[in-house]
Order: sequence, then C-alpha cells, then structure tokens
Amino acid sequence: MTYHPLDESAIIPFIKQRPLMEKVFSSFDRLSVKEVGDGNLNLVFIVENEANPAEAVILKQALPFLRVAGDSWPLTRERMRYETQALLKHNELAPGLAPQVYDFDEEMSLVVMEYLRHHEIMRKGLVARNHYPAFADHISTFLVNVLFFTSDLYLSGPAKKELQATFVNEHLRKLQEDFVYTNPYMESPENNWNPLVDDMVQAVRADGALKIAIAEMKEAYVNHGEALIHADLHTGSIMLNGSDTRVIDPEFAFFGPMAYDIGAVLQNIVLNYLSHYGHTPDPQKREAYQAYLLDMIRDIWNNFARKFDETWVNNNRGELVPEKYWDFPGGQDAFAEYRRRYIQRLLQETAGHGGVKFLRRMMGIVSVWDLTSIANPEKRAIAERLAIRIGKRWVLERKSITGVDDLIGIVLEETGDVAV
Amino acid sequence: MTYHPLDESAIIPFIKQRPLMEKVFSSFDRLSVKEVGDGNLNLVFIVENEANPAEAVILKQALPFLRVAGDSWPLTRERMRYETQALLKHNELAPGLAPQVYDFDEEMSLVVMEYLRHHEIMRKGLVARNHYPAFADHISTFLVNVLFFTSDLYLSGPAKKELQATFVNEHLRKLQEDFVYTNPYMESPENNWNPLVDDMVQAVRADGALKIAIAEMKEAYVNHGEALIHADLHTGSIMLNGSDTRVIDPEFAFFGPMAYDIGAVLQNIVLNYLSHYGHTPDPQKREAYQAYLLDMIRDIWNNFARKFDETWVNNNRGELVPEKYWDFPGGQDAFAEYRRRYIQRLLQETAGHGGVKFLRRMMGIVSVWDLTSIANPEKRAIAERLAIRIGKRWVLERKSITGVDDLIGIVLEETGDVAV
Repeated sequence: MTYHPLDESAIIPFIKQRPLMEKVFSSFDRLSVKEVGDGNLNLVFIVENEANPAEAVILKQALPFLRVAGDSWPLTRERMRYETQALLKHNELAPGLAPQVYDFDEEMSLVVMEYLRHHEIMRKGLVARNHYPAFADHISTFLVNVLFFTSDLYLSGPAKKELQATFVNEHLRKLQEDFVYTNPYMESPENNWNPLVDDMVQAVRADGALKIAIAEMKEAYVNHGEALIHADLHTGSIMLNGSDTRVIDPEFAFFGPMAYDIGAVLQNIVLNYLSHYGHTPDPQKREAYQAYLLDMIRDIWNNFARKFDETWVNNNRGELVPEKYWDFPGGQDAFAEYRRRYIQRLLQETAGHGGVKFLRRMMGIVSVWDLTSIANPEKRAIAERLAIRIGKRWVLERKSITGVDDLIGIVLEETGDVAV
Repeated sequence: MTYHPLDESAIIPFIKQRPLMEKVFSSFDRLSVKEVGDGNLNLVFIVENEANPAEAVILKQALPFLRVAGDSWPLTRERMRYETQALLKHNELAPGLAPQVYDFDEEMSLVVMEYLRHHEIMRKGLVARNHYPAFADHISTFLVNVLFFTSDLYLSGPAKKELQATFVNEHLRKLQEDFVYTNPYMESPENNWNPLVDDMVQAVRADGALKIAIAEMKEAYVNHGEALIHADLHTGSIMLNGSDTRVIDPEFAFFGPMAYDIGAVLQNIVLNYLSHYGHTPDPQKREAYQAYLLDMIRDIWNNFARKFDETWVNNNRGELVPEKYWDFPGGQDAFAEYRRRYIQRLLQETAGHGGVKFLRRMMGIVSVWDLTSIANPEKRAIAERLAIRIGKRWVLERKSITGVDDLIGIVLEETGDVAV
C-alpha cells in the first residue's frame, strides 16, 4: 500500500485486511476507533473491540511533515522503522517490559501495538508522589537484558556488526547530538531557559573545563557503539503501574554507549526529586518522597550492577573476552576484576552522560514537565539551580565516582541547605 | 560479467573492453601480461604497454577460496570491495600517498591500479638499513588526512554515519579481533612462537593485569568508530622510495580507533629496530641505524600531532565541537586545551594498541619478516624477548604516557643493556 495518512474512517477497513489482526481481535464486527494523538508527528488511534474491551490496540502512523535539517520525509519514515525494530528487539530480549508489537507496515510507516490501558507515564506519576515498588527491578532487568545481549559480551563479532548496521539512524541521532551535547551550551535560537537562572546558564556556557568535559562525553556518545541503546530513556518514555513496567518510544535507538540509557533514568529521577521543592510544600511529605527517590536510584544501580555481572557470568558467549581467555592460574580472579572495572566504567560514564543531560534540560530546547509544571518561576528556579550544580559535578567528577553513593552524595551535598 | 577467475590469456581481452582503460593505455596493440601473485588469495597480473613501458597497471582479482570461519566466498568478494572503497577514499583524501585506482569490477572482484615499479616494501628496506627521508612527512600526512577528514571533527553527523555504514567489514574485522587481541594470549592451534621464549609467552598468558588491559584495548578497538582506519598498517603495507610513499592493501579498513593505525606504524618500526640485534652484527652500524629509527618514530608522531592540530584548526567544520561552541571569553584557550587532550589521548591509545601488537607478533599466528628472517633462533630470541617486554610496558603504562619520548624511553630502557 502506498503511503497515505489514515483517518478514523480508514482504520477499520485497514485493520480488517491485515492477517495478523485476526490474532488480536476475535471478531471485527464491533470495532471502535478513537484518535488520541496530537497529530503533530504521529497519528495515534485506539482500536477496541466493544464486544470484548480486553481486545484493544494502539495504531501509530508517522506523518510526513516532521521538518528537521530540510530533509523531512525520509526522517519520518525511518523513525517508524527504527522504533519498530527496537520494539521487536526489546520484546525479544526483555519480554514484558516493552509494549507488544502486533503488526507493522513499513510502506505506510505504521505500527500496531499493545494498548497500555492500565499504565501511567512515569513522569506524571512521580510528580504525584506515586510509589512503584517493582520499578527498580524491572528497569534494571530491561537495561541489563537489552544492553548485555546486544553487545560484544554476548554476540559474535559479525553478528553484532550486522545488527548494528540495521540501526544507523543518522538523522535522529543528529537531533540528540545537537540538542543534548552541543546547542544548549552556545548561542542557538531554540534554547530556552528561566530568566531567573540566566547567570548560571551564562556561567555554564563560559566554563572552559566543563565545555571540554561535555565535548569529551559527546565524542563518546557519537563513537562508542557498545550496544543497542534506547537513547531517549527519560521518565516520559516509561509507562508503568505498581506491578508492570513498559519502555516505549525507542525511535532514537542506535548502537551507542550503555551508560547513556542508565544515565537518562537516574538523572530523570533526580530531576523529579528536585521538582518537589516546587510541587510538595509540606517538608515532611517532600523529604519522605525524596528519600524514596534516592533509594530508587540506589536500587536501580545496585540491581543493574548485580544482574549485569550475573548475566555476564552465566552467558559468557561473546567473543570480546572468551572463557578460554581467562583459563590460567588466577584467571577467574582476573575475569572478576575485569568485570568489576567494566561495570565501574559504566557508572562513571553514567555520571558523565547523566550530568550533561541535567544541563541540557535547564538551558536547551526542551525542559521536563516535572519542572515546567511548577507555575511559580522562583520556585522553579530553586530546582533548576540545583540541577545545574548537580549536573556540572556529575560531569566534572565522573572519573572519581566509584559507587552509586558517590552520585547520590553529590545530590545530598548540593541540596543540603535548600531554603524553600 | 559473472565472476570467473581470469588467466593470462583472458587479461588483454578483458582490458580491451573496459572503457576506463583507454585513459591509461595509448594503444592496446602491444600489451604484455605477466602473472606475479602467489595465487593464494588473489590473482595478480602486471599489464604493460611494450610500446611505452610507462603505461603499466596491476590487475588484482580475488580468488573465491579464502577459507575463514566456514564462510569463504562472501568474505573474499567483500574483501576486494572494501579494498577498492578504501583505496578510492585514500586517493581522495591523501592524493599521491596510495596507488591510483583505474578501474573496478565488483562482480568480478577485480581492481586495476597503478603499478608501483620504483617502490620497495618498507619492511624489506628497513631490514636492509635503507633511509627514507620523506617517510615521516608522508605517513603523518596520510594518517592525518585520512583520519581527520573521515571523523566527526570534519564530517557532519549524518555524513559520517553514512560513510561508516559502507565499511561494516564484519568478517575481516573478526580476523583482526581474534588474531591481534584474543587468540595469541590463550591456547589456540594456530599460535606459533620461538620455543626459546616460551617462558615469556606463558607468563604473558597468565598475567592477569596484562590480560585485563588487553581486553580493554580490544573493547576500544571493536567499539570506538572514530574514523576510517586502514587496520593493517604495518611496514609490509607500505611501498616507498626516497621520495615517494604509498599505502597499499587496505582491505581491513573500517571505522575504528585512530590510534590503531598510528600504533601499527610506530610499533613496526620498533620491531625493525629490535631485529637489527640479529641482522646487523656491527655495533656501530646497528646503533646508528637504531638511532635513525627512533628519530623516525619521534618525527612521525611530532609531525602527526602538529598536522592534526593544524588541520583541525583550519578545517573545523565538523559537528562534534562547532566553532560557535568555543565562542566565549577564554574559549579559544579551552578549544586548544581540548585539542591537546584529544591528541594526547591518541598517543596513549597508540601505546595501548601498539603494545598489544608487539605481543601478538611474538606469540600469535604471524610474526614479521624482520624477525623471521633472522636464521639463528637465539639471536631471534634476543629481539623477541625485548619486544615482549616493550609491548607489555606500552600497554600497561599507556595512561601515563604524555609525549612520544615516553614511548621511546621505554624502548631505550629495555634495550639499554642488551648483550648480543
């Protein structure tokens, strides 16, 4: 089918002629359609069987008018292909932690996937001080499974490179390279910041040591093709409830540094922590929830580190360092030490990439809803100033980080004497 | 034309029907053909116009029976495509420093290129203690031009990734990953070493700290896609004379760490330095030539570092760190400091990759002719022991290297009291 955008009336006829849809819907007789997207980048429809509401799907179609770098349509088409490829990989490697994919039409730039009716966007839930007892366990499993099993620690050299070659994703990657690592720290028309923190924004832009460090993190982001990363894993890309977690919207996926994804998760939780200086005036409630968030960060990292190490030991099939390589007296100790250093490097790079991402949110093209939803600009500025100070330290002190308590320690030090 | 191997009698008819050959040969009437390859991996023919011997070409065709990993033919076909793509890129970026490509037939896995009649293989020339006054200048230009202009320092993000995507080269890369970074340091049937250095080979295999460091260099080799590297730039891949230098045989080319190529050049010169303990019994001649080789190493690095920095300043068009990024008070100093750290990192990684390559030559599948041509195994062992000691130190001490004299210093310290 040649590409054309679908409207509500075209959805049911489209669904009916897709063989895979017969596996989802027991009958096509009473399907209902509701458009729910904002029609900006994508059309999004919910299709439900009114005879059995448990049978429901999301149909998402890319629109051809996302304009970036004067090259709109190929980007948009690619976007849906990369998103679908990544979703399929996530389902394969971390089943139950991504929405299921039911159908995909590349020519139509369209994907049909599971409707997550009982989940909320994590960012909103954290602002509401919700608790997610399963999250640290789930997200650490997602990260370990996707990152480890797409890396050279598990795949053969050729298999890794052939998979990597299907995720070139050069146009979407440019967006992140520009908007995370470059433009926020220099004059660029799309930048946007709270005038009350202008002094700190200007100071970051003129801080030579910090600019060098950000450039070094960018070089790593651009060139270190370690594993299939989500590359946009903020709390707006996570839908969850108390017992279930799904990672959505992986259209930026490519082979990059593992730590970028880990840093995105941890840094977004810290941003939420800071947002409660605005959202939660009651100091007891605020401190209790902030303590909960720091525990969540500690749990995520500690779970990640433990599972990554266990997964490596139990699935050491990759060619990077084959088992036989460690076959000498003391070799198992050396292998353990190599793993320890590898995982510690991941934490240091988590600090580096996560730190940069604090800064970009405060002075680049997009902030986060946790902060923009604080109506009072002075209250918002309290959180923003802290975010800039913490981000700067995560970046500059990254090479001396040895455990997650060093990362948390910086948050505690910078927020120790906040007057709200 | 469907693939079939050409024999001598088929060459002239083939040449005659290729339009591009009319630009090389003023006439096809008196062409002569001589087969010169060993017929192992490739067929190689010299085609000459007897009416004008200045008109001559090399025709190189891949044979379909290179057997690696049970997957022979695709590897062989790819090999010729990667070699040709890289040769064309080298000619574009470093004109005069690679053989010219006249014609290419992908289906026939065949390339027609410049016949380098007046050049010798550098490895042989160094064993003969020849001097190459233009080499340090030429090879540093080759390295700077190819590495800088295929990196994110010059190309746009999408352009870099699209070029990178044409050099996946996953099968040939596996050969280097196995035979440089893995197999030599563990039991593997193809390994081969001088029994007189068996104690040192066993010690390397059982050295936990060294094995971890080699694994770390391998991770960087596999994952850091900085620029188009030659990936086999030993002195057997260089043909030259007193005034002209050409880099040949780039079939392993892919986007990898810049320092791998630099390390290959420097490390091969040190291996040649060591080989003169066997080849040059006269201590005065030997010391003079060894001093010449150390000067060559110093010149190559210093030329590389200076030209890389100048090229960067004069061609700062890439998106990694755009000019505007440094537009703040003190920004030019920060940019200079960033470049200084970037180039120092290249030197440290040069030590790391170069150091590993010393070791693989002493205990892996292939040594170097500089050493294998020393008939007396005891004399050969003198050089080999030194190579292992120097290689180990280059790897383990790489992070404290701040200038090329640190690398040379290790060579001088280890060879200070050699008794020949």
